[in-house]
Amino acid sequence: MKKNVPKNGEVVKNTPHVIRWIEDFRGKVWDRVVTCLTGMRPSGRLHLGHYKWALENWIALQNNPNIKNNFLIADYQVLGDHLWDTERLRASVIDMVIDWLAVGLDPKKSNFVVQSYVPEFAELFNLLTMFTPYSVATNNPTLKDEMKKIENRGEGENSFVSLWFINYPVSQVADIMLPYGEIVPVWEDQIPHIELARKIIKKVNTMYGTDFPLPLAMISETPRLVWTDGSDKMSKSLGNTIYLTATLKEITAWVNSMYTDPGKTNVQAKWNLEKHVVFKYLDIFYKDKAHLEDLKKRYVEWWEHSVGDGEVKKLLIKVLDELIAPIREQREYYKNNMDLVISSIAEWSQNVRNMGQDLLSELKEKMWILDYGREFRR
Amino acid sequence: MKKNVPKNGEVVKNTPHVIRWIEDFRGKVWDRVVTCLTGMRPSGRLHLGHYKWALENWIALQNNPNIKNNFLIADYQVLGDHLWDTERLRASVIDMVIDWLAVGLDPKKSNFVVQSYVPEFAELFNLLTMFTPYSVATNNPTLKDEMKKIENRGEGENSFVSLWFINYPVSQVADIMLPYGEIVPVWEDQIPHIELARKIIKKVNTMYGTDFPLPLAMISETPRLVWTDGSDKMSKSLGNTIYLTATLKEITAWVNSMYTDPGKTNVQAKWNLEKHVVFKYLDIFYKDKAHLEDLKKRYVEWWEHSVGDGEVKKLLIKVLDELIAPIREQREYYKNNMDLVISSIAEWSQNVRNMGQDLLSELKEKMWILDYGREFRR
Repeated sequence: MKKNVPKNGEVVKNTPHVIRWIEDFRGKVWDRVVTCLTGMRPSGRLHLGHYKWALENWIALQNNPNIKNNFLIADYQVLGDHLWDTERLRASVIDMVIDWLAVGLDPKKSNFVVQSYVPEFAELFNLLTMFTPYSVATNNPTLKDEMKKIENRGEGENSFVSLWFINYPVSQVADIMLPYGEIVPVWEDQIPHIELARKIIKKVNTMYGTDFPLPLAMISETPRLVWTDGSDKMSKSLGNTIYLTATLKEITAWVNSMYTDPGKTNVQAKWNLEKHVVFKYLDIFYKDKAHLEDLKKRYVEWWEHSVGDGEVKKLLIKVLDELIAPIREQREYYKNNMDLVISSIAEWSQNVRNMGQDLLSELKEKMWILDYGREFRR
Repeated sequence: MKKNVPKNGEVVKNTPHVIRWIEDFRGKVWDRVVTCLTGMRPSGRLHLGHYKWALENWIALQNNPNIKNNFLIADYQVLGDHLWDTERLRASVIDMVIDWLAVGLDPKKSNFVVQSYVPEFAELFNLLTMFTPYSVATNNPTLKDEMKKIENRGEGENSFVSLWFINYPVSQVADIMLPYGEIVPVWEDQIPHIELARKIIKKVNTMYGTDFPLPLAMISETPRLVWTDGSDKMSKSLGNTIYLTATLKEITAWVNSMYTDPGKTNVQAKWNLEKHVVFKYLDIFYKDKAHLEDLKKRYVEWWEHSVGDGEVKKLLIKVLDELIAPIREQREYYKNNMDLVISSIAEWSQNVRNMGQDLLSELKEKMWILDYGREFRR
C-alpha cells in the first residue's frame, strides 16, 4: 500500500495540511485517484444549510473522477452523546440516507458507510489510542469547548461527559485512516482534529514503517456563519430553517415570515441589505447574479421601477422551490422504493469493511501481532 | 440470554460483589454452569509465582464441572504499554501458551482467548465507553497508582500515559462482559475494576432492559506478598525467581543461593523462621505439613536430630523438581509439537468471537442500532 498526500493541491499559507475547497483542484491533473472521507451525524432531516454547505459540495466531489469518496453516516457520533434517544437516531439514519439519495449522491459512485456497521473502525480506534498520549488527546481546543457545552446543557443525568467523548477525536482518526482517507472536508474549527490525525498516523508510520497517508483538511471558502441550522447566530436571526422535504406551501410560508430591513419604511433610514434575510438567501441560492444586483439597486431606490419585499420574496420562493422540488420528488420516489434505500446499506459499508481488514492486516503484520503462530506453521 | 449472578456463593461481608476463592464453592450444588473469565498479560516465561497463585487455581477451576472457563491471553494489555517492544510480545504469547498447556490447562475444556484475535472486544469496549462518565473512568485508585508508575519509569518518550491506558479499565469490562463472565478471579487491588464493571453493566441493563450478568470478584486467600515475581517486596528479598522451564541443575543452584536465617550461627539468637526463605517456600510447596512442622522444630533445636540448611534445601530442591519436572517434560513435548500449540490458537478464540457476536447483536438490537433497515425490508 503506497499512498502519498498529493503535492499539487493548493495549500493555505503556513498550514500545509489545510487546503481550500474543491474548486482549487478543478482542472488540475492528478496522477491518480485521491481518497476523500467526509460524513454527517444523523441528527434529523436535512435542511437547506446541509444542502448548501455540505451536500452540494459532496456532489461536486462525487462528480470529480479523480476523487474516490467515502460518505460516513456517523451514527456512533450521535449515539455516544444521546444514548437515551436511540429510537430517534434510527429514524434519523433512514431520513438522512433518503436525503442523500434524493440530492443525487450515488452509492454506486461513492461509498456510503454506516459507522456502526464497520467493526473495523472500533478495532483500529482501539489500536490508535495506544499511540496517543493522554495529554495530547485531552488538549484539543475544540474538545474542550464541546465538553463545556455538554456540562452546561442541563439535561441532568445526561449532561455528563462520557469516556466516549474523550475518545471521539481519536475515533475520528480511525474513521479517516481506515479507508486510507487523504482529503477530509471540514470546518475551520475541526482543523485540530485533522492535526491530531496527522500526528497519530505519522507516529504509526514512524514506529512501524508503514506508509498510511497523512490527511489534508479541505476547508470551505464559505464562512460558517451563514449555515442555517439552530446552532449559530445567523441561523437564529433567520428563524427556523427549511427542510429538503418542504412543499411549495411550506417554502412560501417560510419565506414570507422572513425578516426584511426595517429601514424600508423610512426614507431617511440607511438601506442595510446586509440585514435583509431575503436578499441574504438570494445571494446564496440565486444564480443570476446580474439580475440580483439590478434588483438590489432598484430595491434601495424606492421610486419608479423600484421593487418591494413582495417581489423579492416571490423570487426567493421560486428559486428555492426550483431547488427543492426535484429533491422532494426524488425523496418521494425513494420513500416508495425503500428497498433501494435499505437493502444495500450493509453492502455499501462492506467496501470499507474490506479496506479496513486490509489495513488492519497490514498494521498488525508490521506490529508483529497479526498471527502469533505464523513462523511455527508448516 | 438469561444469566443471573449466583446467589449461593459465599460473599465477603459488606462487599457482596466479592467472594472468596474457589474452595468456597467446592461441594456446593450449582443449578447451572457459571462462566469465569480470567487472564494473564503475556510478559515473558511463567515462573513459580504464576503457577502457585494463578495456574494452580485455574486448573482447579477447569476441573470444576460447574464452571465454564475463559482464559484470556491479554496481549493488548501488554501492547498498549510496550508498543516499542512488539517482537518480545510475540515470543511471550507463544511461551505463555506453551506454559499453560504444560501445566495442564486444556483448550478442549476451557476457552483460550487471544485478546487481539477477537475484534468484538474492541467493538463492545467502544460501546461501553458511552456508558462510562469520564469522571468515573479516571477516578479509579488502581489506575491513578499505575499512571504515576508509568510517568516515573523514566523511559523517556515511552514514559507517557496513553489514551489507551485511561481506557483500559473499561476495555477490561468488555473482556469480562463479552463471554458473559460472572466470576473473575482477581487480586484485592483489582476490586475497583470489578466495581467499575458492575456499574457499567448495570447501567446498560437499566437503560436497555438487558440482563447481562454483573460479575463477582473472586479473591484469593493467599496474600499477594508471597508472589515471587520482581514486582513486590517479598520477591526482591527472595532474589530471582525460577521459571517453569528450570532444569534440576537450575533449581539446585537457585535453592542453594537462598537466604536462610543468620540467627542459626549464634545459639543466643532468636530463631526467626519467618525470614527463612527455604522454609517460606516449603510452607507453600511442600504438601506433607506434619513432616514440615517436625523439620522446623528440629531445625530450631540444634542438637541431636537437628537438621541444617543443607537438609532443608535438599528437600526443597526435591519438592520443586517434583513439581516442575512434569511441566518441563510437557513443555518439551509441546515445543516439539508446535502444531498442537499453534494451529488452533485462532480456533480457540473463535468460541468467544461467536459469543461476542451474539452479545453484540443482542445489545445493538436493544439499542435500536442493529439493522437500520429492518422494518422496511419485506
